[in-house]
Amino acid sequence: MSTQDCLFCKIVSGAVPSDRVYEDEDVFAFRDINPQAPTHILVIPKRHISSVADLTDSDVDIAGKLMVVASKLAGSCGIAGRGFRLVVNAGDEGGQSVNHLHLHLLGGRRLGWPPG
Amino acid sequence: MSTQDCLFCKIVSGAVPSDRVYEDEDVFAFRDINPQAPTHILVIPKRHISSVADLTDSDVDIAGKLMVVASKLAGSCGIAGRGFRLVVNAGDEGGQSVNHLHLHLLGGRRLGWPPG
Repeated sequence: MSTQDCLFCKIVSGAVPSDRVYEDEDVFAFRDINPQAPTHILVIPKRHISSVADLTDSDVDIAGKLMVVASKLAGSCGIAGRGFRLVVNAGDEGGQSVNHLHLHLLGGRRLGWPPG
Repeated sequence: MSTQDCLFCKIVSGAVPSDRVYEDEDVFAFRDINPQAPTHILVIPKRHISSVADLTDSDVDIAGKLMVVASKLAGSCGIAGRGFRLVVNAGDEGGQSVNHLHLHLLGGRRLGWPPG
């Protein structure tokens, strides 16, 4: 899929509206339209990366930023103390629904085990 | 909890045995003793970090390395093509069971939604 056809690239550019909760030079975060918990936010790189499976050593910085931003958002959303879960899906069996790397931040309820 | 009392610090040092699958200067990975999928590996920083909730901007590099190593392990385990899921639990409601940051790599079966 090209960047032009990517839903999340369109959300980053503003061509598709979203419920944005955070944005910096490299990272964008918005609320999931099908939330699976009281807090359910997607944290994505602005640059198009199709999947976590495509990450290489040159992507360490952006991958780390996604995780740190998600953790900070858990704090600002008031769920850091209770606990939360970060999830990244890859490919068909992983349940990846949009081919633009995204990290799910879920919290505000007790999350069960196994994680799917 | 001090580093001396931490189970995963003991696994890194070798004081507690584990089924190790990867190790480099900063990262250690081993099979979960209670696997929730045919492939279930824990990827951890060698340095003690209690929780993803404790990450700061100075931890971007180690956080990114965890994700990149996990993705590479999915490849070397033969599950990258089928798909996989990465999960980080934080705190009580997130289901964190050991207070040393760890990233779960799960694959080899179809993972459901929601993720717990």
